[in-house]
Amino acid sequence: MTTSELRRRLEELRRGDLSVDDLLKYLRDYPYEDLDFAKIDHHRPLRTGFPEVVLGRGKSPQQIASIVQSLAGRGSPVLVTKADQESFNAVAGVMPAAIYHSLAGAIEVPGENPLTVREGVTVVTGGTADLPVAEEAALTARLMGSPPERINDVGVAGLHRLLASMDRLREARVIVVVAGMEAALASVVAGLVSAPVVAVPTSVGYGASYEGLSALLGMLNSCAPGVATVNIDNGFGAGYLAAQINKMGK
Amino acid sequence: MTTSELRRRLEELRRGDLSVDDLLKYLRDYPYEDLDFAKIDHHRPLRTGFPEVVLGRGKSPQQIASIVQSLAGRGSPVLVTKADQESFNAVAGVMPAAIYHSLAGAIEVPGENPLTVREGVTVVTGGTADLPVAEEAALTARLMGSPPERINDVGVAGLHRLLASMDRLREARVIVVVAGMEAALASVVAGLVSAPVVAVPTSVGYGASYEGLSALLGMLNSCAPGVATVNIDNGFGAGYLAAQINKMGK
Amino acid sequence: MTTSELRRRLEELRRGDLSVDDLLKYLRDYPYEDLDFAKIDHHRPLRTGFPEVVLGRGKSPQQIASIVQSLAGRGSPVLVTKADQESFNAVAGVMPAAIYHSLAGAIEVPGENPLTVREGVTVVTGGTADLPVAEEAALTARLMGSPPERINDVGVAGLHRLLASMDRLREARVIVVVAGMEAALASVVAGLVSAPVVAVPTSVGYGASYEGLSALLGMLNSCAPGVATVNIDNGFGAGYLAAQINKMGK
Amino acid sequence: MTTSELRRRLEELRRGDLSVDDLLKYLRDYPYEDLDFAKIDHHRPLRTGFPEVVLGRGKSPQQIASIVQSLAGRGSPVLVTKADQESFNAVAGVMPAAIYHSLAGAIEVPGENPLTVREGVTVVTGGTADLPVAEEAALTARLMGSPPERINDVGVAGLHRLLASMDRLREARVIVVVAGMEAALASVVAGLVSAPVVAVPTSVGYGASYEGLSALLGMLNSCAPGVATVNIDNGFGAGYLAAQINKMGK
Amino acid sequence: MTTSELRRRLEELRRGDLSVDDLLKYLRDYPYEDLDFAKIDHHRPLRTGFPEVVLGRGKSPQQIASIVQSLAGRGSPVLVTKADQESFNAVAGVMPAAIYHSLAGAIEVPGENPLTVREGVTVVTGGTADLPVAEEAALTARLMGSPPERINDVGVAGLHRLLASMDRLREARVIVVVAGMEAALASVVAGLVSAPVVAVPTSVGYGASYEGLSALLGMLNSCAPGVATVNIDNGFGAGYLAAQINKMGK
Amino acid sequence: MTTSELRRRLEELRRGDLSVDDLLKYLRDYPYEDLDFAKIDHHRPLRTGFPEVVLGRGKSPQQIASIVQSLAGRGSPVLVTKADQESFNAVAGVMPAAIYHSLAGAIEVPGENPLTVREGVTVVTGGTADLPVAEEAALTARLMGSPPERINDVGVAGLHRLLASMDRLREARVIVVVAGMEAALASVVAGLVSAPVVAVPTSVGYGASYEGLSALLGMLNSCAPGVATVNIDNGFGAGYLAAQINKMGK
Amino acid sequence: MTTSELRRRLEELRRGDLSVDDLLKYLRDYPYEDLDFAKIDHHRPLRTGFPEVVLGRGKSPQQIASIVQSLAGRGSPVLVTKADQESFNAVAGVMPAAIYHSLAGAIEVPGENPLTVREGVTVVTGGTADLPVAEEAALTARLMGSPPERINDVGVAGLHRLLASMDRLREARVIVVVAGMEAALASVVAGLVSAPVVAVPTSVGYGASYEGLSALLGMLNSCAPGVATVNIDNGFGAGYLAAQINKMGK
Amino acid sequence: MTTSELRRRLEELRRGDLSVDDLLKYLRDYPYEDLDFAKIDHHRPLRTGFPEVVLGRGKSPQQIASIVQSLAGRGSPVLVTKADQESFNAVAGVMPAAIYHSLAGAIEVPGENPLTVREGVTVVTGGTADLPVAEEAALTARLMGSPPERINDVGVAGLHRLLASMDRLREARVIVVVAGMEAALASVVAGLVSAPVVAVPTSVGYGASYEGLSALLGMLNSCAPGVATVNIDNGFGAGYLAAQINKMGK
Repeated sequence: MTTSELRRRLEELRRGDLSVDDLLKYLRDYPYEDLDFAKIDHHRPLRTGFPEVVLGRGKSPQQIASIVQSLAGRGSPVLVTKADQESFNAVAGVMPAAIYHSLAGAIEVPGENPLTVREGVTVVTGGTADLPVAEEAALTARLMGSPPERINDVGVAGLHRLLASMDRLREARVIVVVAGMEAALASVVAGLVSAPVVAVPTSVGYGASYEGLSALLGMLNSCAPGVATVNIDNGFGAGYLAAQINKMGK
Repeated sequence: MTTSELRRRLEELRRGDLSVDDLLKYLRDYPYEDLDFAKIDHHRPLRTGFPEVVLGRGKSPQQIASIVQSLAGRGSPVLVTKADQESFNAVAGVMPAAIYHSLAGAIEVPGENPLTVREGVTVVTGGTADLPVAEEAALTARLMGSPPERINDVGVAGLHRLLASMDRLREARVIVVVAGMEAALASVVAGLVSAPVVAVPTSVGYGASYEGLSALLGMLNSCAPGVATVNIDNGFGAGYLAAQINKMGK
Repeated sequence: MTTSELRRRLEELRRGDLSVDDLLKYLRDYPYEDLDFAKIDHHRPLRTGFPEVVLGRGKSPQQIASIVQSLAGRGSPVLVTKADQESFNAVAGVMPAAIYHSLAGAIEVPGENPLTVREGVTVVTGGTADLPVAEEAALTARLMGSPPERINDVGVAGLHRLLASMDRLREARVIVVVAGMEAALASVVAGLVSAPVVAVPTSVGYGASYEGLSALLGMLNSCAPGVATVNIDNGFGAGYLAAQINKMGK
Repeated sequence: MTTSELRRRLEELRRGDLSVDDLLKYLRDYPYEDLDFAKIDHHRPLRTGFPEVVLGRGKSPQQIASIVQSLAGRGSPVLVTKADQESFNAVAGVMPAAIYHSLAGAIEVPGENPLTVREGVTVVTGGTADLPVAEEAALTARLMGSPPERINDVGVAGLHRLLASMDRLREARVIVVVAGMEAALASVVAGLVSAPVVAVPTSVGYGASYEGLSALLGMLNSCAPGVATVNIDNGFGAGYLAAQINKMGK
Repeated sequence: MTTSELRRRLEELRRGDLSVDDLLKYLRDYPYEDLDFAKIDHHRPLRTGFPEVVLGRGKSPQQIASIVQSLAGRGSPVLVTKADQESFNAVAGVMPAAIYHSLAGAIEVPGENPLTVREGVTVVTGGTADLPVAEEAALTARLMGSPPERINDVGVAGLHRLLASMDRLREARVIVVVAGMEAALASVVAGLVSAPVVAVPTSVGYGASYEGLSALLGMLNSCAPGVATVNIDNGFGAGYLAAQINKMGK
Repeated sequence: MTTSELRRRLEELRRGDLSVDDLLKYLRDYPYEDLDFAKIDHHRPLRTGFPEVVLGRGKSPQQIASIVQSLAGRGSPVLVTKADQESFNAVAGVMPAAIYHSLAGAIEVPGENPLTVREGVTVVTGGTADLPVAEEAALTARLMGSPPERINDVGVAGLHRLLASMDRLREARVIVVVAGMEAALASVVAGLVSAPVVAVPTSVGYGASYEGLSALLGMLNSCAPGVATVNIDNGFGAGYLAAQINKMGK
Repeated sequence: MTTSELRRRLEELRRGDLSVDDLLKYLRDYPYEDLDFAKIDHHRPLRTGFPEVVLGRGKSPQQIASIVQSLAGRGSPVLVTKADQESFNAVAGVMPAAIYHSLAGAIEVPGENPLTVREGVTVVTGGTADLPVAEEAALTARLMGSPPERINDVGVAGLHRLLASMDRLREARVIVVVAGMEAALASVVAGLVSAPVVAVPTSVGYGASYEGLSALLGMLNSCAPGVATVNIDNGFGAGYLAAQINKMGK
Repeated sequence: MTTSELRRRLEELRRGDLSVDDLLKYLRDYPYEDLDFAKIDHHRPLRTGFPEVVLGRGKSPQQIASIVQSLAGRGSPVLVTKADQESFNAVAGVMPAAIYHSLAGAIEVPGENPLTVREGVTVVTGGTADLPVAEEAALTARLMGSPPERINDVGVAGLHRLLASMDRLREARVIVVVAGMEAALASVVAGLVSAPVVAVPTSVGYGASYEGLSALLGMLNSCAPGVATVNIDNGFGAGYLAAQINKMGK
């Protein structure tokens, strides 16, 4: 039920063309979504400027291309995560403006709406192998108006490298820590700063890293408060949350 | 090395009472922490008003009491989590102002410093059995100056109860979702609001809930973005992070 | 918004005491739940006669008693599962009609409404130690109008006992199989009958039964089609589902 | 021993051509299955019209083709699940009527017997990546005479999409919910309807979804009653069970 | 249907007191078990002298006592495993001849039938904490006519103790190895002898022994052939199997 | 030190060409194995006719070929398990008599010694996909002088097929049960016969079969006594153990 | 066979009182251990001064007391780990010199032999709850002649406390790091020093610490080289290894 | 801040060109690392001659090549572990002196500094399939100045092979045990020698070896003291630690 339809019915009632009982019945039986769509989705306007996001994994290139096509052109950028070159080719076939970020494994279709930009997010990695996930986080945050600072390769095995970056860390409003193996970096960073830390375990490592389980458990059990964790390799989720938090109070 | 000591040495150098080489040697050999304590712990002032926190589990009542005694009296409140009645008795013996929150299993020693208070945190639970963890989260947030709103018993099995609370949910700046079993509440809430969601899996349930594993995995795999997860039953961590985020931009 | 309130508003509109625009605004801003409560909960009438159910585990006796008190007296019976004697005492204190089923660990507060009864559910157990879970299933089904047949102690180690019950099994419309250890009973039963099988793994066993994991995985991997599984020890869930299925087509 | 053979022997006994002892010995020694086949397999006639089903995974194309050939031609359709293009080619070489459902990864050899058709099954998916499993479920249900309704892409991250489908959901007699990641959809749907829900966790997701474990645990721990779960990605099992339930009471 | 009943019917048929059709119908409808009991349970006579066994865990003392009472008095001994003192008291109340083996946690009700005894089973333990499980194995084997040799405390950390027992090991026909922690004893023993080894992992250990998982996996992955494994702490199963094998060829 | 060398030394001592002290020193310092080889390896003669076995997995084709070459030619056959076609090619290059069993994935180099053959082993499979593991078991048993009976495709979903094979099952001295998924077949068979059952879980299945974990746990938790389990897909281990047991008492 | 016995036999041979064949036979048949005991156990003298160690867990107080009694009085101290007060009482009953270390849960029976003492081991803990395990490690090292330095409560959440202890850390020859939760301390310490680090994960924590699994995986996946890990809560193993390493080169 | 810069500032202060307050401020604000780099990294000189190490896994060939290029030429060798041929090609393109160890999967760029060499490390393997990991360990130890002894293929299934190597084992100062499957070798070796054992579980095996989990748990639960464990397949970590320990006391 669109607002105009509802208005029409209410006017019929006022004109006496519809009884109260009929309208009551009509309201109760009318397809739910049309009214509620607007009510429930109140938060959508708040997300203006946020990208439309598609998880590429598990979808065929054709499916991705057609979903992207249906989402693009509304002003917001479109982001496809965990996407390979083949999926990009399919998307580029229908959206020539699409850009492939190969390290992040992500497709970006730029939006037309100007983004309000706010600095304050910093993305930190433990090592070189964490870069793809960090790129996904950084790209997501940038598309949401929070282009992040980057601090790379500051794993705790060489603590001096991390401590050398402390001034930059202390300036951050939200910190995304991307680390694999034992992921001690999240605890150490959270112990050094007062900003909230969004921790992303990565599947970097081998053997008893169990595809990121060691990092995940390490981050969940951080002895420093102020750490929350997202799924293994979920750079998107961390970048999204960091940008969401960063925009608060604006 | 305190600042006053360092100042004294520098003045000795300026007066010629100390050679450059001696001061260099002194700087290098002086116990490390004294200088670095100040440098590294820059964030401590930012946390003024935050509680000193002790994890009670795994410590004896006597250990807890003596730790609390050493922390109290600096202005900030002291919070002991996962503490039983016996530990409280030990603490109350030395700190008569201590309060036991039995549902949360937490001991509070009120601080003297007035807290700057900011509303904006909402703590939501799926069911009655999640209350102890939610209480821990709420108490932590309150001690950090973010006394939370509470919405209880809105598990997704009765979706109307959750939807009935949507206006209050939409007003929150940060939402803590406390849920066990399949913990679908986190995804549903995150899909309905634009505020960041801090998800706390609880060990509520039995059988294949595996002491909160089902809830933990559910929250980590939320299909809605904007969710970060803390450890199972870690109400403290969620309340801390929520208050930390809530105070941003202030 | 109750129906009577809505009716009043619509009549105001019809009388001209309210403009269309005001009513539209009113409808959009009015607390959501009041309207939706009725809309979303359409299925509640369908459940008439179904028990109100409370999971006792994780709740204090006082919490259970007060929840039961608030649920009772609406015609339907109230069922508390995974409840101990102490919780029963608390409930009996406020609801003298309450009955404790000690083997099932369940509290029943009988309802006033007459139940439509339909036979067709059969509850089968592998061994004596599975009885508590089977009792919970049987009690649930009975409170939902499907008092079940019972076939006990027909584990596959003595196949002849199971085969001796085949005529009774073949008459069932829905079969609940309750078994621990390797839980082969579910596969064997499903291979012998054409009725749907609701499988309940139990935590019976030790060592590598891993508190019911072996039974759970066995049932999920049944080589016979027509088996669906509920949580370990979840007799309630199986009894509920079996009764739900049994009442279909009535 | 077929019934006619047995009759012949009994008549020999009655005619005095066979002694009681010889017949007793004969009955005991005769290959077991011939008698019991009929007794035990009473349910087979009940399954008339049900497809013969082969799990393709783990079998070579040649094995699949020869099994299909031996099953086909008895009136019922034959269904091969988890089969790739190569297996289809082998089957099509011997059964030219075979059809390959590439999204479902299933081979269908149509049966000659007319199916009694009954509507009532609805297959719901959380997202696009769940489609292959949902296709398998839908194909299975269709081959069993319950061609399902389909509701796609109604994951709980956008609750309005699900609520918009509620009228269709409420009309279903049995609902198959296919979802990966946290699989909250099963709980939410079961809380909204009174029909039994057969839940299929999918291996959609990454990281801590652990190839469907998060979805499996989520569904097993549903806080809404009326949910039973089948194996991860087991669309066939769900479609089979749903059709089995749907045909009850007919 | 017992053989005598069947004989009676066949004689009725032969006498003309029963028609072929009636007998056919009778055979088909007669309760299944009565005939099949005899057919399927052919192996029971082979087990003459084997104990009747009840798993005590998960059963109440009263249940155990009444099961034992129903099993005893048939000539064979009755064995209750995983039984505590309280269960023994209940059993002894009804069966005064019952004996409690407290280290094994087992109740024995001696049988009247003389057992054929055969030596050849040897039960080996890694350490003192493995004794309860070894006792259960030894008791089981003894009740089955294979009173075992015992070699204790020969864990591989002191290899000389094991090697010192090699002559006794080489004389065994079947060896039961009971070991916890890393359970290397099974591999080492199997590499030293040519007899089959039945390996029982025990839950001895702590931390990453995971209640016997380390021992279980170690035994399943034995680099020496000739090892088969039973459930963690399943002394009964190992003793049973060892006696079964030992009696072969007799 | 071979026996002939030792004899030579002892004769030198007797002749006075060697002092007692020198011989004592010599005995103590002589490479350990040479003496102990004979002592410890007493069981080797017992294994005469047993194949030399190489696990192919994890070794390069060249490594396999050179190991096989060094083992062959001693009379006993050589068996390489888990070997692919490429490894066979390397072996066949140096051992032209080598035979590749492609379904079992095993290489056989026939031995020259005549095998004493004893019947009594039966290998049973649940389904077609279990065949490769069953082939490995059967080949191993055959090379050890126990060419097995085979009963295929008697999974418990169609119990009549298994019951139809009961006479053959009852004749077996040792039964190897090869099954995946829930592996209920092991329990059912062990409940029907009095022979020991060696259970081989297979990695057949998908989803929550967890590469054979469901089958492994099912077999370890068999409710029927007389079952011992080997590693997942370890047909070799089962065939070896079965042959070892079968030759007992001979 | 002791050396003196062997000498006697060789002299008999030399004297002609024994034939070569008889001696050969004798050598082959003589009980194995008597010779090998000496050969294999060469390392025992090297361990002089090391404590005899008994794992208390899983043994009854009486068993512990009698094992201790048999071990004591040989000069070396005796250490019982994971022992409770009741076990100590039993030990003290027979060994009045026994000392109970209640925090470590360990019983010490002092030895008479003077210990060579070498400094160089440092035991570091993350938090107060790790103390029991650290006490066990320290006690073990002390009983092995390496009384350790102690640095407590330097978890990485407050990095300045750890850095303040760096001079003491750098002086250590071997460092035992005892930490629970995410156990990041091991990685951080190993990155700061050049001494080998023996890491002990503790079961401190809750929820997704999984009784020390998070700490174990974290330590196994340390991004800093030079870390080796012992079992969860295995203070004994770490203290033993540290003392063993510390005594090297002495 | 380099020492020379700091000296310059202090001289400015002494000359009166800088105030005490300015210098204090300068010290506090100056980029942290420059001072701390020297302080914290005191251990680096101790590592002179140790290789620079890069974990190849998870990095692209180009990333590896550029990291190697930046590390080489400082005197120390560079080691890349878990590297494939393609990565070697990229490295060899910029560092022609690079050597590829294909069995170890490691790249070595030799250093110019002469290494002080000390014998004392022995690397032991259970079987041929453990060789790649053992090669990685041996190469690492050699590059750190501890070229190891090698003892291969002494798995406990043939104990005599291990015992035959005991003299060489007893001479070792540190032993690296590399073994998969049940990895009993670590316990057996540690029980035979007094040197510390660094245990490396390998992912050799299949089925319930769970990619090295069985070996890992086995080693962590060694019943012999003196064993510490590194990550599955982490030959580098074991070789590094062994060399570190071996160089102690030098």
